[in-house]
Order: sequence, then C-alpha cells, then structure tokens
Amino acid sequence: MDMNCLCLKINLFYNLQYDYPMNTIELITIGDEILIGQIVDTNSAWMAQELNREGFQVVQITSIPDVREQLIEAFTNALKRADAILVTGGIGPTKDDITKQTLCEFFGTELVFNEEMYQNVLRQIAGRTGLMNELNRRQAYVPACCTPIVNEVGTAPVTWYERAGKILVSMPGVPKEMEQVMKNEILPRLKAHFHTPSLVHRTIIVKDYPESQLAVKLEEWENALPPFIKLAYLPQVGYIRLRLTGKNEDKKLLSETIEEEVGKLREILGAAIVATEDIAPEVLISRILKEAGLTLSVAESCTGGNIAHLLTLHPGSSLFFKGGVVAYSNEVKQHVLGVNPNDIENYGAVSREVVEQMAQGVRKVLKTDIAVATSGIAGPDGGTPEKPVGTVWIAASNSEKTISRKFQFGNFRERNIEKATFAAIFLAKELVEK
Amino acid sequence: MDMNCLCLKINLFYNLQYDYPMNTIELITIGDEILIGQIVDTNSAWMAQELNREGFQVVQITSIPDVREQLIEAFTNALKRADAILVTGGIGPTKDDITKQTLCEFFGTELVFNEEMYQNVLRQIAGRTGLMNELNRRQAYVPACCTPIVNEVGTAPVTWYERAGKILVSMPGVPKEMEQVMKNEILPRLKAHFHTPSLVHRTIIVKDYPESQLAVKLEEWENALPPFIKLAYLPQVGYIRLRLTGKNEDKKLLSETIEEEVGKLREILGAAIVATEDIAPEVLISRILKEAGLTLSVAESCTGGNIAHLLTLHPGSSLFFKGGVVAYSNEVKQHVLGVNPNDIENYGAVSREVVEQMAQGVRKVLKTDIAVATSGIAGPDGGTPEKPVGTVWIAASNSEKTISRKFQFGNFRERNIEKATFAAIFLAKELVEK
Repeated sequence: MDMNCLCLKINLFYNLQYDYPMNTIELITIGDEILIGQIVDTNSAWMAQELNREGFQVVQITSIPDVREQLIEAFTNALKRADAILVTGGIGPTKDDITKQTLCEFFGTELVFNEEMYQNVLRQIAGRTGLMNELNRRQAYVPACCTPIVNEVGTAPVTWYERAGKILVSMPGVPKEMEQVMKNEILPRLKAHFHTPSLVHRTIIVKDYPESQLAVKLEEWENALPPFIKLAYLPQVGYIRLRLTGKNEDKKLLSETIEEEVGKLREILGAAIVATEDIAPEVLISRILKEAGLTLSVAESCTGGNIAHLLTLHPGSSLFFKGGVVAYSNEVKQHVLGVNPNDIENYGAVSREVVEQMAQGVRKVLKTDIAVATSGIAGPDGGTPEKPVGTVWIAASNSEKTISRKFQFGNFRERNIEKATFAAIFLAKELVEK
Repeated sequence: MDMNCLCLKINLFYNLQYDYPMNTIELITIGDEILIGQIVDTNSAWMAQELNREGFQVVQITSIPDVREQLIEAFTNALKRADAILVTGGIGPTKDDITKQTLCEFFGTELVFNEEMYQNVLRQIAGRTGLMNELNRRQAYVPACCTPIVNEVGTAPVTWYERAGKILVSMPGVPKEMEQVMKNEILPRLKAHFHTPSLVHRTIIVKDYPESQLAVKLEEWENALPPFIKLAYLPQVGYIRLRLTGKNEDKKLLSETIEEEVGKLREILGAAIVATEDIAPEVLISRILKEAGLTLSVAESCTGGNIAHLLTLHPGSSLFFKGGVVAYSNEVKQHVLGVNPNDIENYGAVSREVVEQMAQGVRKVLKTDIAVATSGIAGPDGGTPEKPVGTVWIAASNSEKTISRKFQFGNFRERNIEKATFAAIFLAKELVEK
C-alpha cells in the first residue's frame, strides 16, 4: 500500500485485534452485474461495516455469476472457513436466478409452497402494474429445510439454513431490500445465535488532522486506553471518524469510562472535535441551524455548487437553506455578490478580502442569517508559486462578524472540492457556536 | 432481483454470450480495508469493466485479508478455474503486507534484488519527505521467477508470473497506481498472451427511455443484428449507454456495418440519441459550448446545485461556465432571478411559467449566452395529487427563445436530483443545436 496510508493501516491493523474471539463471516454475492463491472459492490461494504460494528469478523468476500457449479463450490469452501455465510442476489423470479434451486441441491432438500411467503408476494405486488403471474408465484416456494423470513420490501423470500452449528442466509441483492432485512432480521438473529458480546460504540468526528498526524497526536492516549476499549480510525475525505468500541459486562463502568476517554480526547484535540456522535457533517450543521432557527446561504467558487448539493441531498433542507450563488467567474463575484473589483485585482480572487466579501454579499442578497463562501484553486490548472493548487480561502459571515481561514489541500481536484466543502460546513458551525 | 431490473438482466444475460471463446479472469483483492467495510471495492468494478471491454470474462472476484493461508488457498483455487489471476493490494513495504513473500512460497522461489526496481523506488520517493529507508529498499526485491514490471506512479513493483500457460499478476491496490499499470502494461500483455480477438466498440448515449421500454423498442432491430455484432445495455441514472461490440477480421466490413447499425438506431430512436460515442453528458455539453464559444449559467431549485457541481467537477469548466443561482426558496426565485411572484402564487413554483422565468432570469443576471433551470419536487415530502413527488419542470433559454419540458421521475430523492440534472444538460444541448 501507499506510504501515505501507512500510519492508518498500522492503526487499523492493531486496533481491530479485539481481545475476545470474533465469529467469522463470509459474504457471497451472486449475479453478473458486479463481474462485468456494471455496478460497484456497495452491498458488501455496507454489510462488512455493520457486521464489524457488531463484533463479527468478515474473512472473505466472493462475487460469482449465476452458475450452479460456482455456487456449490463457493458455499462448500466458505462453510469450511467461516461460522456464517451471508449470500446476496440470485433469488429473483427469472430463469437465470438459480440460487434457491442450488441451495435445495446443496442442502439435499426440495422446494415447498409457503403460505406466508405467498401472502407477502401478494402484498408486495399490490401497488405495482402487472398482476400475479407464474414468475411471481414461484417466489412463494422455499427449500423445505430452511427457516423462511419475510422480505418486507420485496417479493424474494429470505431463507436461513443451519448445519452443524453453522449458518447460511440467502438474501435479495437489491440494496434497499438487503439493508432492511439485515437490520431488522439477520443481524439480531446472528447476534442471538452466536451470543456475540454486546458492544458499545462511540464515534468522534475530528477535523483539521490528516490521519497520520492524528495517530501521532493520540498515540500516548491510545496506549493508555483500558483493555476493554478499542480505537478504530475511519477516515473520510475532509474529516476523520474515530470509533471507540467497548465491551464490558459492567455497563455502568463502561459508559463512565467511555465518557471519561471522550473527555480526555476533548482536552487533547480541543476545537478539532466536531461531534461526539456518528453524524455526517452536513446533517449536523442542518440540525444546528434548524434548532437555532437560522437560515443559511452559500457563495461557492471553487466548490462549484457542491456545498449546496450536499445540503440539499437530505430531505428537509428547505427549512434552513434558502439557496446560493455559484460564483465561478469574477463577473458573478462582482455583479451578483458585490465584491469590489479592485480587491479582486489587488489580492486575487483567492484571497481573504474576496472570500469575506462573497460571504457578506450572498448573505445580503439572499437575506439569510448566516452565509459561507469558498474561493480556491481546485486544480489541476491555475496554481502559482504563491497560491499553488489546493489553496482555498473560506469565510463564514453573520450580521455581527465575518471569520475566514486559509487551507492548503492537495493536488486532486475532486478531493479539494470535497475537502473545501466540509471545511466550509465546519466554519459555519464555528461561527454559529461562537 | 427486483422485477424492475428484469428486462435489463435478461438483456445483459443473453447479449454478453459472445460467439467466440472468452478467456477467463479472476480478480483477488488483498487487505483489510474492504473486509471491514472501510472502503468500497471500486478497483474490481473498474478492472471488470476494462477486461470485459477487451473480450475477457471475469468469473470470480475475491477479497481476502493479509493472511498467508488464505492467499495460498485463493491463488490455488483461482488458478484451477481461470486462465489469469489479477491480484491487487498487499504489496506495501510494511510487515502486514505479505503478498510478495507468499507468492515466493507459492511459486517455490525466493526474493532477489532488482536494480531496475530499485531505481524506480529512488525516482518515486525523490519528491517526498522521508528518505530511502529499509522499508523502501525492500520494495526493490522481487520473486526470482517473475517478470518484474515498473510501477511508474508508486514504489511497489508489479510482478507477472506464468505457470502452465496461466498467468498471475500482482499489482498495487492504490487505485491510481493500479489503473495506470493496468492500462499501460497489463491489458496489452494479457491481450498479446491470450491472442484475444481485437474488438471494436461503439457506444450510443440514449435519453428519455427506461431500459425496459428501450429493450422492447429495439427488440426487432437487435434480433436482426449480424452475428458478429453484439449489444449490451449499460444503464446509468438519467440515461442509458448502449454498447455495440463487433469482432471481424474484415475491418472495413466491420466499421461499415457498425456505421449502418448506428444509422438504423438513429431512425428508430431519433432525438433520443444524445451521442454516438462514449462520453459523459456533462463532458459532451462542455465540449459543445466551448466549441461554439457560448457561456452557460444555471438556476437550480430541486437539483440544489448538482448541475453546477457536475459541470465544475471537470477541469476547464471555467471556460464556458460562469456560475449559477441555487434558488431553493421562493424569495430567491423572486428577488435574485426576477420571477413574477404572481406566477409563483398562481401556477406554483413547480410550473412551466416559473421555470422559464428562472432560466431567463439567471441568463440576464449572470450575463450568459444560454441558461438552464430546474424546479421540481425531489421528495420524499412536498408531493400533491396534481404534482406528485418526482414532478420536475426544466427550461433552457437563450436570447432568442426559451424551451421547457415537464418530467415525471420516481420516488427517490437522490435519483430524482440526478435524473433532473441530466435532463437539464440534455435540454441545454437541444437548445444549442436547434
């Protein structure tokens, strides 16, 4: 791996060695879409993250096509290695989906009609065009030896198999169906079956630190953590999620200790801590603004609309977000936001003077309580020796004051846009809380 | 799988059965990041897509941790099934990266110092902080039996093994390193080794059709395709990529036939064809505007900044894109874009009247040649019986005329935002070409 990730990797590697045995899981995805590169396997990443948080260890992920021999081989090998196998996909009603049939063969059983599954198929297709046909009716058949589980958001039944203490589960591959089934049915059943320790998690959102520097800063504190508390680094572009995981029978001691450690982290990291809960920064600022009854507008140059886009991806954003101006050209900065052309001339568009006037300008034009603005060089072109690619000025403004800060990000356009977006959100938060 | 995807699946399933033998490939990713769900395996999707286009068939994708036994087992099983194995990750200089060592063991050989690899390590670390240390020096050692290949953008060497006509390649897991190595080194060598047929691809970008309807519309034409031309549906959110793949020794006949089939498609689909090359819509509109010397601005309500974001993700967008107004609230529509408040009152914000005034308004305020505007109900809230969630009005305007169109997308906020974004880009293209 790249040397830049070294520190991170070491941290993950050591920190995820929990001091209790972890039950092992394998994930198998069935279908051609992943193998021809048509879709990215986000299901496995989602499942691995959820399972990891519940104290399971994913030891292998396998993607195979709808081919009988490959299914049998994959099931056989996985059951040798792991305690449980979670299979997604390949259970639609069409002929090419052969997973249910192959599971019958694998477990030496046959398909039987199941009234509960049939009723679910009826419920699911009620709202759709196309009536119950033979293809849909087939969905009500399940292998005789399994425990069938109702899929609340689709027609394909979920099936659960046990053999010699090991588990195999077959689930739909449609992400929203899989996620619903995993959360409501499979994770609780797996935890009960394997008597997994109940873990307590606490996530801390940290800004302003690259992961390698954060690891150095936290080394001493981390080494002094009690043995029943583990730390994981979960870096995002623009911020880092630190996750404390605790396991202890004494729940009171556990919650007190985690609180204490979060307190120590606050002392070490100070204002770099954005939140002590697992929340996306744009959702956090939305909540803060809604609770305070404040409206927001944005003036975006280098972020090109990404702040507005991120805020409006979430429902309910119209309660605090009135809009923004993407001021990509200097004319727009002058004519729409009222930035002084002499300041653009003298200091350049990427400067404290200009970005502060952008924030003040959009706040006045859009009549909001607060505003943030960005101006920077996203790259790959436009850098100079004084202002290399990755230089970004960010300002936040309300009726009383305007604060601004300069950032030096990296060489990659997309990452610079994303980092500047989160830096702007963090500066808005800082302004509101001042 | 979901019934909605049925048509697509059937199409893919049948169409990808080429009439020549395809060499089989397995992908193996090594490292903990994917197994703990920290990252999504985008490498495999990228590789699968590239390999598929070159006429290879990916038959399995496996993710395993840095564990010796699992590596040996995965290599052994994969070499039984496939003609070539592409391994990514696990070749960094740290102790937990054991792939190189394990490959030595697997092929019964030992690590030897390689001067060419050493010179590359020196070149790669030249620009970085941290001098040559023991960890970096280790990168210059490669298994004696392999063909080492220089990694032009990183320190980890690429190694190529042959055994009984089969191939195993070990590559870095860092995406930009893997992609560079795949394109410049591995794909050409694989094609030469396996004498793969040289394929000709032609991609057609189609708007306005859900894939199931498109499949019905094209059924007759598709069935009449000459046997040496195959069709694949590659649906995106907002448009569909149709890919024609041809294989014939007679290059002249092949190129003429593909041209002829594209001509037939034009007759069947008319204006729904956006492009007859593989190009992202936002890159296409950028090129069209730059070539015509026209400037663009956007007024976004329901898309919330996503059009501006998508256009500015690509370098060079400042050559035609002057900026935009995210008019999330009605006040911004009125006060910044000059929309008549009576029209908002009478027709609603999601209406032809309002969206056309938004487009005209932003064009005047930002002084651009053309402008596009969106106003719709992204969901999940805000729908009414007359204007349910997914209703979106889009307008495009220049100094001579304003055109607008109403769309009915679906129930999912994110997908509605994305579909509206591409619909706006397509409408801008239509206006410029009128």
